[in-house]
Amino acid sequence: MAVIVQKYGGTSVGTPERIRAVAQRIVAAKEEGHSLVAVVSAMGDVTDELVELAVQINPEPPEREMDMLLATGEQVSIALLAMAIHALGHEAISFTGPQVGIVTDHGHTKARILEVRADRVRDAIAEGRIVIVAGFQGMTADGHITTLGRGGSDTTAVAVAAGIGADVCEIYTDVDGVYTADPRVVPDARKIDVIGYEAMLELAAAGAAVLNLRSVEFARNHGVVIHCRSSFTEAPGTIVKEADESMEQAIISGVAHDTSEAKITIRDVPDRPGVAATVFTRMAEANVNVDMIIQNVSEAGMTDISFTTPKADLVRARKAAEVVVCELGAREWLVDESIAKVSLIGAGMKTHPGVAAQMFRALSQAGVNIDLISTSTIRITCVVAAQEAEAAVRALHSSFGLDDAEVTTEVVPACGDGE
Amino acid sequence: MAVIVQKYGGTSVGTPERIRAVAQRIVAAKEEGHSLVAVVSAMGDVTDELVELAVQINPEPPEREMDMLLATGEQVSIALLAMAIHALGHEAISFTGPQVGIVTDHGHTKARILEVRADRVRDAIAEGRIVIVAGFQGMTADGHITTLGRGGSDTTAVAVAAGIGADVCEIYTDVDGVYTADPRVVPDARKIDVIGYEAMLELAAAGAAVLNLRSVEFARNHGVVIHCRSSFTEAPGTIVKEADESMEQAIISGVAHDTSEAKITIRDVPDRPGVAATVFTRMAEANVNVDMIIQNVSEAGMTDISFTTPKADLVRARKAAEVVVCELGAREWLVDESIAKVSLIGAGMKTHPGVAAQMFRALSQAGVNIDLISTSTIRITCVVAAQEAEAAVRALHSSFGLDDAEVTTEVVPACGDGE
Repeated sequence: MAVIVQKYGGTSVGTPERIRAVAQRIVAAKEEGHSLVAVVSAMGDVTDELVELAVQINPEPPEREMDMLLATGEQVSIALLAMAIHALGHEAISFTGPQVGIVTDHGHTKARILEVRADRVRDAIAEGRIVIVAGFQGMTADGHITTLGRGGSDTTAVAVAAGIGADVCEIYTDVDGVYTADPRVVPDARKIDVIGYEAMLELAAAGAAVLNLRSVEFARNHGVVIHCRSSFTEAPGTIVKEADESMEQAIISGVAHDTSEAKITIRDVPDRPGVAATVFTRMAEANVNVDMIIQNVSEAGMTDISFTTPKADLVRARKAAEVVVCELGAREWLVDESIAKVSLIGAGMKTHPGVAAQMFRALSQAGVNIDLISTSTIRITCVVAAQEAEAAVRALHSSFGLDDAEVTTEVVPACGDGE
Repeated sequence: MAVIVQKYGGTSVGTPERIRAVAQRIVAAKEEGHSLVAVVSAMGDVTDELVELAVQINPEPPEREMDMLLATGEQVSIALLAMAIHALGHEAISFTGPQVGIVTDHGHTKARILEVRADRVRDAIAEGRIVIVAGFQGMTADGHITTLGRGGSDTTAVAVAAGIGADVCEIYTDVDGVYTADPRVVPDARKIDVIGYEAMLELAAAGAAVLNLRSVEFARNHGVVIHCRSSFTEAPGTIVKEADESMEQAIISGVAHDTSEAKITIRDVPDRPGVAATVFTRMAEANVNVDMIIQNVSEAGMTDISFTTPKADLVRARKAAEVVVCELGAREWLVDESIAKVSLIGAGMKTHPGVAAQMFRALSQAGVNIDLISTSTIRITCVVAAQEAEAAVRALHSSFGLDDAEVTTEVVPACGDGE
């Protein structure tokens, strides 16, 4: 029988009634003979309420104390879930992140897991108990409580699964898997049954919000199989695992879009060595996250440098851009907040040239103008006007045959390509 | 300068505003040059709300998980208080009970402290920080979170004070000290400036609710000086410490009363050896706490055994009494729920005979009938009808001169008494 880690988010444990429903699901799996570990988040809005309380007391609360405060949210959930399982006649035992040996660095509010000492989980499983673990939290080697930042509970679940060598890490969410595109934009979007780590990482990075990027990275690095599924149905969701033969059939996994970034352009920068280094050193110093970077061809000794950055970083980015323009003697800087990134992702495109051409043609036919382009081996991203994003996603989804159950593309193998 | 431990209860930290007020008081003491450790309880009704939530999920929640749940209440308080102190420009660091090395036994929901490994508190003090410690909680040696039961935060404060060798443990409360009687019953009751551990223990055991019994025991065993005072004023409260010459002047420290117990009488028990053992073995087996025990003189081979027990234990006590009556062939058992214990406490009575006589005379003059009597070296307790309790307290308070600033008694030294 399998060792299964299940992760339930804040919505799944938002009320006493829902906690009882989660307990029933866990007990059902246990009664099938599996060993069960459940990782849970704080109930519903509890984390937000705690942040609210903190800010009332100190508008800039120290991060160490913020972690001390927020860690209580998951601790409440694990105790209640263990109680609910006991009420169903099964033995459950809850552990906080520190108790379960989630050792992190000192990056309070966004700590990274260094090690999982999962002995207590293994021991409790061996005793036949259902183990409940608080997501989102850990402890430094010298005993300070930390939290893992956004999506931290997913990362805890994958880390615990890696630590105990679980057969699968089931991430329960309010959607029933990873889709070929956002179903709100593309009604014909299909659920993906199986996807490789790399493609899932690119999808997550490109805006597909179902799975947290760091948890997928962790799963890839430790070979943990993720099963992303709905907490409201029994239907199978999306399996994320090492890509293999069967998965290579699909050239394109999906289309993702992201409207959370803005574009900054530094105009007419003197084109000499070290210019780009200066721009992005200043941005890093200002704690500005930079995503896509494009430098156009030089013209009369001048060039333009464009990059995208989360809108959340824009205030800092504007100040840094002002400094850069002065420092480099550039003409000006411009900000465009009405952009969207539209990305085509698929491990198959590595060996199928012509994908980019087909992408650009489909966008052109849909009347979508392309502003910037960036590529990786398994992703092509175009920046377009925000208001054209949905049309772009639909055009790509249709052009690459993702609307149908069978994937058919018009990609033509290039000369000299493997095959 | 002194090392001071301050303990603030749930009311003192019940709102963000009150937390800020507590922070100001702590910072004021710090700025006088003292080293500060604050022990805090959960905010206001948080513990009750958590219990409510648990019972919704499992009417009989497992105690280990109850402790996991309840420990979050204090953890929220310490984080918020540390934030409030930071907002005032001082360095504060919070620790949970487990982090601070409060090692307890496995008695979940009412664990006893076995050891305090206060290294982290000492280190943080040495670094000039204000240390905030979660009251009410600890951890077993093998890493399970426990809580200390009612009044647990007082015990934490005293234990931490003992662990770091603090000069004083200030217990802040909503009254300004320990009184010679409950001021709601005796308007003329006086605040006691200094009292010995033994007298304080008897007062607490006899119903004076200001200080928790276990914390006073802990203080006595480790020689911790307690200063019980109001969080609303700067006025000094009551110092509890080892009795010395100056304190022996007062024969009587105070009058306490307690209406939380009921009396059970087993009637016409055959008077043979082992009878009392049987009665109280059965009570212990039924988890019934027994307080006062009185066995009357035997008459025609039969005797009556009476005892008092908390009303909270009455359901179990009735069942056990039924069994006992059958087992011993006694006539019947009776319960009286309308009783009150009225106690006179004072270390001075050890060397001043006649106190009991004066007590009985005062009660008689006030028309109060005495039902049961029990004594220790520094306490005399009478059980009276509940409706006569307040009259009894006032009569005793007045008879022993506690109404006045100067204590004057009519106690007559007995022949042969030390002097």
